[in-house]
Amino acid sequence: MKLARFGPIGAERPAVFAGETAYDLGGLTADIDGAFLAEGGISAARTALENGELPELDTGARTGSPIARPSAVVCVGMNYAAHAAESGSEPPEVPILFLKTPNTVVGPDDDVTIPPGSERTDWEVELGIVIGRRTAYLGSPAEAMNSVAGFVVGNDVSERRFQLADSGGQWSKGKCAPGFNPLGPWLVTPDEVDHTGLRLRSWVNGQPRQDSSTADLVFGVEYLLWHISQYLTLEPGDLVMTGTPQGVALSGRFPYLAPGDVVELEIEGLGRQRQTFVEYSPDAVFRAEEGHHG
Amino acid sequence: MKLARFGPIGAERPAVFAGETAYDLGGLTADIDGAFLAEGGISAARTALENGELPELDTGARTGSPIARPSAVVCVGMNYAAHAAESGSEPPEVPILFLKTPNTVVGPDDDVTIPPGSERTDWEVELGIVIGRRTAYLGSPAEAMNSVAGFVVGNDVSERRFQLADSGGQWSKGKCAPGFNPLGPWLVTPDEVDHTGLRLRSWVNGQPRQDSSTADLVFGVEYLLWHISQYLTLEPGDLVMTGTPQGVALSGRFPYLAPGDVVELEIEGLGRQRQTFVEYSPDAVFRAEEGHHG
Repeated sequence: MKLARFGPIGAERPAVFAGETAYDLGGLTADIDGAFLAEGGISAARTALENGELPELDTGARTGSPIARPSAVVCVGMNYAAHAAESGSEPPEVPILFLKTPNTVVGPDDDVTIPPGSERTDWEVELGIVIGRRTAYLGSPAEAMNSVAGFVVGNDVSERRFQLADSGGQWSKGKCAPGFNPLGPWLVTPDEVDHTGLRLRSWVNGQPRQDSSTADLVFGVEYLLWHISQYLTLEPGDLVMTGTPQGVALSGRFPYLAPGDVVELEIEGLGRQRQTFVEYSPDAVFRAEEGHHG
Repeated sequence: MKLARFGPIGAERPAVFAGETAYDLGGLTADIDGAFLAEGGISAARTALENGELPELDTGARTGSPIARPSAVVCVGMNYAAHAAESGSEPPEVPILFLKTPNTVVGPDDDVTIPPGSERTDWEVELGIVIGRRTAYLGSPAEAMNSVAGFVVGNDVSERRFQLADSGGQWSKGKCAPGFNPLGPWLVTPDEVDHTGLRLRSWVNGQPRQDSSTADLVFGVEYLLWHISQYLTLEPGDLVMTGTPQGVALSGRFPYLAPGDVVELEIEGLGRQRQTFVEYSPDAVFRAEEGHHG
């Protein structure tokens, strides 16, 4: 099943797909958030859909993030060997974790502002995991899929000077600028995809950049969730970004992003994003997604 | 003015103090959260208090975090020169930022669980800043105090093996275990304290550990908020932890925490915390604070 949110920032409407047709979940839930996911919302949506209880929804409006603002965005670094190499590192022996502020999460096609002073804004296509229930101290990786509500496409947008030169070594400084985590278009339930072998790709102005498979993850989905759960508690609705493959500007093989550049990202079965990167303007007020409560 | 929250986890009652007496803010707001702070809640609480509109509140119950779960906890590393030295580092040239998951925030006197396998759980008394309004791209440090709702005592509890040896260098892995950010007892408005010269201290089992002053911060409150705002957007209700002074176990001068140890922390004018550190039990379900909506 595919879920999504459509509408203006701050007023996104929850939806579920049957084929190409979107149906309005607004009568069932105010939002696709942690409470909805933890309380069996996906199952309730499936039943309502099957019973023909949901009105069709016009998806012509803006596509929002498929989930409301999470309580945490947990990211994994250097989790493809070839990306570690292009970044000048060995593949890690244990998962490297860092966090993004949750207010970076925006819709998959929203414009992304290049921060003032930035000369090294970079793209990172990633498989994102949306958490379906509170998860701490899992006994083994085999338990991990019980915690997964679904998968999403994410762009872990990064400013490399902020991340590496200005940071004293702590990466989050280059990962949290406004709009730096386009997410979606859909939240796809695990039964719809084989998450162990999904092709993931990115393009800049139509030219290919990244082209890899989640089969190349150093640490796979189940291992990551088990590992993360030993160090922190994942909440329902949280987002785990599993790392990016080779083919980013940090490699030196491609230029960093400039105003007007169009970045597209796609993961097999999870949909496609398209963002225009724009110049910072002090007059433009960035509006983060917040989710809303009915 | 001092604000606080009293009651069981998940059902904390907002309160405001006049002298030693607490008054119930529950008729004015469901919680002390970002919306309350951004919409003039502190001013409304002051007016209601002055007009005698608030009933007294029994504070005999548990003291919660003085703020509901934030959208982000932004921490500053190595921000006292003597602590940088005891950690084997030079004082940083720019503020070093890292993030904690917001579900680490708990009450100031709640028990803290030593994570399974931990042998290096450490304390860190810190001046915390609570944000009162959305803050991005401040023009100068002189604008920063407009963003401050108040100050709090925080314990940036840290597991040093997780943070330094198991992390690949990204500190958050050792900062996010359940209950690792005791906060409070009070949110104190800026007019009540001189935040540039507050004595801050900690004790373990009654023995002194840290004893310093916010006058020794490498980067002060105003500079930090200005700097952080160039990299990320602070939301109302967010928490900024400004760093810890010398005197932690990482220095090698004191043992790490063991079950039964009692940690106390105090900042002049902001109150005192007291936590018992306890052994992990798989049967004990950790309950994080969440805040609530009326």
